Amino acid sequence: MLPFSRVSVIGLGLIGSSVARAVRQYLPTVRLTGHDASAAVRETARRIELVDDVADSAAAAVTDADLVILCVPVGAMAAVAAELADELPADAIVSDVGSCKTAVAQALAAVLPPERVVPAHPVAGTEQSGPEAGFASLFRGRWCIVTPLAESDSLAVARVEEFWRRLGADVERMAPDHHDRVLAVTSHLPHLIAYTIVGTADDLGQVTESEVIKFSAGGFRDFTRIAASDPVMWRDVFLANKEAVLEMLQRFSEDLSQLQRAIRWGDGDALYDRFARTRAIRRSIVDQGQDDAAADFGRRHD
Amino acid sequence: MLPFSRVSVIGLGLIGSSVARAVRQYLPTVRLTGHDASAAVRETARRIELVDDVADSAAAAVTDADLVILCVPVGAMAAVAAELADELPADAIVSDVGSCKTAVAQALAAVLPPERVVPAHPVAGTEQSGPEAGFASLFRGRWCIVTPLAESDSLAVARVEEFWRRLGADVERMAPDHHDRVLAVTSHLPHLIAYTIVGTADDLGQVTESEVIKFSAGGFRDFTRIAASDPVMWRDVFLANKEAVLEMLQRFSEDLSQLQRAIRWGDGDALYDRFARTRAIRRSIVDQGQDDAAADFGRRHD
Repeated sequence: MLPFSRVSVIGLGLIGSSVARAVRQYLPTVRLTGHDASAAVRETARRIELVDDVADSAAAAVTDADLVILCVPVGAMAAVAAELADELPADAIVSDVGSCKTAVAQALAAVLPPERVVPAHPVAGTEQSGPEAGFASLFRGRWCIVTPLAESDSLAVARVEEFWRRLGADVERMAPDHHDRVLAVTSHLPHLIAYTIVGTADDLGQVTESEVIKFSAGGFRDFTRIAASDPVMWRDVFLANKEAVLEMLQRFSEDLSQLQRAIRWGDGDALYDRFARTRAIRRSIVDQGQDDAAADFGRRHD
Repeated sequence: MLPFSRVSVIGLGLIGSSVARAVRQYLPTVRLTGHDASAAVRETARRIELVDDVADSAAAAVTDADLVILCVPVGAMAAVAAELADELPADAIVSDVGSCKTAVAQALAAVLPPERVVPAHPVAGTEQSGPEAGFASLFRGRWCIVTPLAESDSLAVARVEEFWRRLGADVERMAPDHHDRVLAVTSHLPHLIAYTIVGTADDLGQVTESEVIKFSAGGFRDFTRIAASDPVMWRDVFLANKEAVLEMLQRFSEDLSQLQRAIRWGDGDALYDRFARTRAIRRSIVDQGQDDAAADFGRRHD
């Protein structure tokens, strides 16, 4: 059974355009409509024939949809939902792909019928942005976390879950606030730290930026990939998931202080103990198919 | 002109075994001898025919060498150098691959003729360890930083530089203390932070380790690769490059506090400004061939 037959994607960046491409590939009979707030992005979407129809407003994009997926920055969700609310067909389901679920759930439920709202978050992405950066296989083997509201219609939830399975994702259901804590650790804190260290390295006296770039293969370059992610998206994530991020950051800072102290006092045993504990997590991530087993992420060395 | 004809590699882990394989591939007429302190590693090296001869002691490995490369953890350099000093041929040059150069230069010069010592550091590696993890192309297109002593013979320096060029590396000459500052930023601090965050995530109350692993594709998994690096090697790096690491860590902590404050007070403009500045560095690293241009490090998505 096809979960939806007329899907509307609002926001045609990396994730939105990947959803569109994945629908084309894995649900080829679905009629696809798209909209983006940027005229330049709409033009690109038309040129590359990303969807069947590109609409010039969010409202015009949803008039015929049975699923609307909001793929805009978390801070833009409320405004976009308000824009399309009046044109939404009575039986259409609204979902999203935002990285914070408590704030998005509140924003959507405030202007849309809550029983038709099913927030979700596919945990996938790259550092690139825009309608040409997306690809159909982005969600294959990745997790999509579905965080229903108390009022969400259970059939609507099941259909959204089936939709993501069709795109190749594994689906997990979670309460919005628990999602926000988990992602604070696995995604938001790593991004904050990567943005910080790349900024720190950009601003040193005795070491030049040219040296940082040349000798980045010692580890630094890994952080620059994450720190090349979309700045608007990430600004909104930190504003929307403030409490959980600050809590995790506090724990991280305490742990970093402990290692700093071990370095200052030359405590090699304390350093070794910490460094020897972390390989097991890497192994589990690779074993569970959440990263490449090849050394160095499978980067080419030739 | 062949820079050396009888090369001895002491320490047959990831880097030592990659040097051996690269010599085999790019300098095939060189006679290769190897030694490792671990009997199990020596046995593996014999089984996979990593070198022409595996010696049972460091001293026995160098009796016929014109180049000796020490590929052991930084903290083991002094003891290994002392072990082989008496057997070293009068014209043999001693180099190394350690990640800290001031400490290693002092350690080697204390027991070896300083004019024959030419410390070096190929900025390359993966998260894997041991004699079977190495590969011949590891150094291709990467930088090798050569940090001569004041007393190093200039012809010896030129021959070591030519050796690394033959293995595919670009060579840069630098003072040892400047090397240690540059690498504190581009390698040591990133590793310390990666080890810290992976440890932090391992030790949370409300978020389980299983959740951290499952949803690691949101960014966390990138850090686990670096944090899977060899714990002995990294313990020694932090003990040997203490001052420079603590200085960079101090700057990083100040920058992180500033972002923490911006999150706490909901200062979206400050967050956006920081996040928008870091893409340019990523672009330069890719432009200069120091990382893969493909999205997501070229990880496969199928």
